[in-house]
Amino acid sequence: MKMIVAMVRPDKLGDVKQALAEVGAPSLTVTNVSGRGSQPAKKGQWRGEEYVVDLHQKVKIETVVADIPAEDVVDAIAEGAHTGEKGDGKIFVLPVEDAHQVRTGKTGPEAV
Amino acid sequence: MKMIVAMVRPDKLGDVKQALAEVGAPSLTVTNVSGRGSQPAKKGQWRGEEYVVDLHQKVKIETVVADIPAEDVVDAIAEGAHTGEKGDGKIFVLPVEDAHQVRTGKTGPEAV
Amino acid sequence: MKMIVAMVRPDKLGDVKQALAEVGAPSLTVTNVSGRGSQPAKKGQWRGEEYVVDLHQKVKIETVVADIPAEDVVDAIAEGAHTGEKGDGKIFVLPVEDAHQVRTGKTGPEAV
Ligand SMILES: Nc1ncnc2c1ncn2[C@@H]1O[C@H](COP(=O)(O)OP(=O)(O)OP(=O)(O)O)[C@@H](O)[C@H]1O
Ligand SMILES: Nc1ncnc2c1ncn2[C@@H]1O[C@H](COP(=O)(O)OP(=O)(O)OP(=O)(O)O)[C@@H](O)[C@H]1O
Ligand SMILES: Nc1ncnc2c1ncn2[C@@H]1O[C@H](COP(=O)(O)OP(=O)(O)OP(=O)(O)O)[C@@H](O)[C@H]1O
Ligand SMILES: [Mg+2]
Ligand SMILES: [Mg+2]
Ligand SMILES: [Mg+2]
Repeated sequence: MKMIVAMVRPDKLGDVKQALAEVGAPSLTVTNVSGRGSQPAKKGQWRGEEYVVDLHQKVKIETVVADIPAEDVVDAIAEGAHTGEKGDGKIFVLPVEDAHQVRTGKTGPEAV
Repeated sequence: MKMIVAMVRPDKLGDVKQALAEVGAPSLTVTNVSGRGSQPAKKGQWRGEEYVVDLHQKVKIETVVADIPAEDVVDAIAEGAHTGEKGDGKIFVLPVEDAHQVRTGKTGPEAV
Repeated sequence: MKMIVAMVRPDKLGDVKQALAEVGAPSLTVTNVSGRGSQPAKKGQWRGEEYVVDLHQKVKIETVVADIPAEDVVDAIAEGAHTGEKGDGKIFVLPVEDAHQVRTGKTGPEAV
């Protein structure tokens, strides 16, 4: 079992959800986050004052899968999230050792 | 060391906290999230318009443990979160390689 | 690759970001969370009623690194977050199996 964790543009959430459903991984958890990647902080002006925008709003999507290869899930998210501009996001794959579905008490891959 | 990650109904947070304290794992981190499981999106009506509710409010609970079996923590959370209705939630167990307590500088299991 | 997950005081976020940038790990994701550590719940008074504060506002910082030792990242966060008072926070290190940069399609350590 794997947890795929993706930080993407908020306005790409709908496309990512659809891409996940199409690849057979519709279950997901969404969190509002902010973050930065590798580029330097962006400077802006507000009422004549210079300020630095260093954290951008993103959504974090977490999807645990058991029977679908993590790579297919990564590809689906990447396809849904892609614009080609800086700030499109990152996807990470983490190992998951066990799962439990609260309603049924099922554990392991069946519970995902 | 393990990180137990659970997505449960917001109104079950109190019961889950109590179950965790009783099993000897009172430390936790809580995040407001939204998500969906495996059932199809629910259709509703608002001012005559049909709409689709596809993300439900949940809370995410993260608990790292060292000396308590992850299974006991999972069972405690499941017990606190259970209603028997669809949407009760999921619990995942992830491996943790190291821990650090900021105030004391302790590392490893002692730091959890 | 490792994911370093830290829960710290919100007013230490700036110091932690700077410490991370100095150690060569500027990329990060920030989430508003609440939580509790090992100390018992704190009792307070509000309009004559006693109440229990059991969850404190924290920020969660997630940083995935490939070429920098996780220990250096942990030390940088700990240094930025330290006050010496209870509630300074915790840092956990989780294994990451793969990474993907959405804009470029790069995978593995190069994508972090
Ligand atoms: N190494 C990382 N660890 C944790 N979160 C990250 C990491 N890299 C990126 N993120 C998250 O992903 C979001 C988007 O990152 P972003 O796409 O800007 O990455 P990037 O490497 O700068 O790529 P690009 O050059 O295409 O902008 C960030 O705002 C942050 O939330
Ligand atoms: N595979 C998964 N990956 C990530 N998050 C998940 C996953 N499955 C469930 N979740 C999270 O758990 C929440 C509750 O899921 P839910 O209990 O509806 O699961 P389910 O499999 O549909 O079970 P049930 O049939 O009892 O409803 C979701 O809203 C989502 O936040
Ligand atoms: N074992 C844990 N699992 C998940 N989150 C934790 C854990 N321990 C601490 N946290 C998170 O870190 C935050 C800060 O914890 P805190 O610094 O109070 O830990 P502590 O062990 O009580 O140390 P101290 O004695 O210095 O207060 C908590 O509010 C919670 O969000
Ligand atoms: Mg960037
Ligand atoms: Mg469901
Ligand atoms: Mg404490």
